[in-house]
Amino acid sequence: MKVKVSRKAHFNAAHRLYRKDWSDEKNTAVFGKCNNPSFHGHNYELIVSVTGEIDKDTGFVIDMKVLKDIIRDEVEEAFDHKNLNMEVPEFSDLNPTAENIAVVIYNKIKPKIDSKLELEVMLFETPRNFVSYSGS
Amino acid sequence: MKVKVSRKAHFNAAHRLYRKDWSDEKNTAVFGKCNNPSFHGHNYELIVSVTGEIDKDTGFVIDMKVLKDIIRDEVEEAFDHKNLNMEVPEFSDLNPTAENIAVVIYNKIKPKIDSKLELEVMLFETPRNFVSYSGS
Amino acid sequence: MKVKVSRKAHFNAAHRLYRKDWSDEKNTAVFGKCNNPSFHGHNYELIVSVTGEIDKDTGFVIDMKVLKDIIRDEVEEAFDHKNLNMEVPEFSDLNPTAENIAVVIYNKIKPKIDSKLELEVMLFETPRNFVSYSGS
Amino acid sequence: MKVKVSRKAHFNAAHRLYRKDWSDEKNTAVFGKCNNPSFHGHNYELIVSVTGEIDKDTGFVIDMKVLKDIIRDEVEEAFDHKNLNMEVPEFSDLNPTAENIAVVIYNKIKPKIDSKLELEVMLFETPRNFVSYSGS
Amino acid sequence: MKVKVSRKAHFNAAHRLYRKDWSDEKNTAVFGKCNNPSFHGHNYELIVSVTGEIDKDTGFVIDMKVLKDIIRDEVEEAFDHKNLNMEVPEFSDLNPTAENIAVVIYNKIKPKIDSKLELEVMLFETPRNFVSYSGS
Amino acid sequence: MKVKVSRKAHFNAAHRLYRKDWSDEKNTAVFGKCNNPSFHGHNYELIVSVTGEIDKDTGFVIDMKVLKDIIRDEVEEAFDHKNLNMEVPEFSDLNPTAENIAVVIYNKIKPKIDSKLELEVMLFETPRNFVSYSGS
Repeated sequence: MKVKVSRKAHFNAAHRLYRKDWSDEKNTAVFGKCNNPSFHGHNYELIVSVTGEIDKDTGFVIDMKVLKDIIRDEVEEAFDHKNLNMEVPEFSDLNPTAENIAVVIYNKIKPKIDSKLELEVMLFETPRNFVSYSGS
Repeated sequence: MKVKVSRKAHFNAAHRLYRKDWSDEKNTAVFGKCNNPSFHGHNYELIVSVTGEIDKDTGFVIDMKVLKDIIRDEVEEAFDHKNLNMEVPEFSDLNPTAENIAVVIYNKIKPKIDSKLELEVMLFETPRNFVSYSGS
Repeated sequence: MKVKVSRKAHFNAAHRLYRKDWSDEKNTAVFGKCNNPSFHGHNYELIVSVTGEIDKDTGFVIDMKVLKDIIRDEVEEAFDHKNLNMEVPEFSDLNPTAENIAVVIYNKIKPKIDSKLELEVMLFETPRNFVSYSGS
Repeated sequence: MKVKVSRKAHFNAAHRLYRKDWSDEKNTAVFGKCNNPSFHGHNYELIVSVTGEIDKDTGFVIDMKVLKDIIRDEVEEAFDHKNLNMEVPEFSDLNPTAENIAVVIYNKIKPKIDSKLELEVMLFETPRNFVSYSGS
Repeated sequence: MKVKVSRKAHFNAAHRLYRKDWSDEKNTAVFGKCNNPSFHGHNYELIVSVTGEIDKDTGFVIDMKVLKDIIRDEVEEAFDHKNLNMEVPEFSDLNPTAENIAVVIYNKIKPKIDSKLELEVMLFETPRNFVSYSGS
Repeated sequence: MKVKVSRKAHFNAAHRLYRKDWSDEKNTAVFGKCNNPSFHGHNYELIVSVTGEIDKDTGFVIDMKVLKDIIRDEVEEAFDHKNLNMEVPEFSDLNPTAENIAVVIYNKIKPKIDSKLELEVMLFETPRNFVSYSGS
């Protein structure tokens, strides 16, 4: 009897899309205005979902307060009001596309939850663009 | 050619999280302010999804009016403006966590739809906390 | 150059609509299922808006962190996960309709902000029912 | 490392549900007020999701600008401000239920994306009624 | 102590923008694709707001059930799943722009509520385009 | 018969809150993490509302396509994917708080619309923080 439990969170950050090893021309050709060297930013909305058996004692798959604290420690404190390219070490050599941010968040949260639980990370870069990643 | 068809509904209810067989101390330690003996409440938003083949005659997987009526009869009339712990028999010995409520709703709706159809129940306890259950 | 600044917050609570000085029949006739003696509940969403001149030094009408803290202290800590009728003193003799809750919140926040600022309180009892009050 | 990338779009259209080969009585019995011969309409909200490996060079599964253009060309220009029954050839002999519209959109977009990518189409007929289709 | 009380509702309808007394060329020049003779449609979302004193006995400005029934009788039953141009008499000689629809709804609801109450009608033609009218 | 007509738009931008003429200590004390020298960012959602008489010929207060184009030219092209502090001249000496951004947008749009129309600008910095300005 597996249930998927989801928690919403959010953080605001600046970023730009580019690769250090590409020329300016190539970065602009591929990433367009997302390559602005002065950065732009987003209100990232995040949904973290955990799937597993309901614990018979508590009726919980995971205590939502525990999940909320993991998200705060691993994501909000690390990313909120930050420049992803300049201040978040995971992106020092990784282009902070929504896809890559979702994978980084997944990899930060996964070791903090019981290994029997499945994890999914859904990240809204804007209300119109979003991605999800579940580890494979 | 399987399509998943979803219908939104909602109900307002009071509840508390606790186990009769636990001490007050243990209930408070595990469930925190959700264990308030005077109850608190939520606007539960519900999405019921049914997956199956499109009927070639009608173009429907299931007639949305039929699904709407099943949700009204099985969920809204049973739960809306109720105290889940005190007035809904399914929770007389079952802790009304979002997880357990989703399973109860699934088990009430499943027998009312064609056995060839798959069912999924998604329940928002708040816009920030939600669960889904699809029967296994 | 007056600007209106708004901040969203939320709390979950149980309540019932009734008057102690009315008979059960009259309470049911007037308040219908909202009069359920076992209570029901809501996720109340709250928007607190403050209108005033922009401070030339900061560019703020009010520091959003200050407003957020006032809402937390005056509303969230007092109402969240509570039974409004039984546990919130303001409603011991006042029917906790959305209208009355909005007025109570207004009266709690008004003395905490600069008297030159105008205040408006908007309260969503559900996404479909909401009220607003601005003090007169 | 597969990620699902989603893009929202929308179109407004008129339609009616009916079958040319049924009597008026049967159409009304099955489709109710959705069979109104003078048509009614919707703001269709569309989510197109593409799942695949992250390209190591770009950090993209698919360039969102490319996906946006495919949706504009294949769906918005073909359906927006149109009468689906009378002006969209795919529905000249196909009942424009949400289910069938989703399948038609899937079939129009699928050939335009890399065959290694999985596609899912989610279509909101209203905020309360929606369907999804992923090709099988 | 005036409070504004709001209730959300919705209806789906087809319409086109045009004037009978204009040439096709002029209608197309002014109304663009909204002038499609085969119609298009919308999910109209409606917010009806009533402002007045809180009744000391009930704690209500207006009983939300009463307001809900007025909206159902005057708006939903008259407009839902209809072609506004062809089937709603108010628009037989009036262009069904969002502005005009809001005024028509205002004029239908106003006589049904206490004359001491102020009325405001807010109409979303799409989530991105909306209008409001309060009678003057 | 005045109607208020509203149009939604959005732009993504980076910014920081600070004053050149203040010390780092003072900027941090007043603006907290919003003063991050590496910037952070937001998806700004914008609602531009215009109030005026309904034109009897068209049924419009203002042609929504015209309003949409004004917003695109004056706001989206100037602010989207930009660093407000570094790349938008209006903020070279003005702190880009939500309040100040709303005033700047108001001042850019006002000369582009008929002087008989009233203008209101509502700006969501996040779904939880927003401001509105109507020119006085």
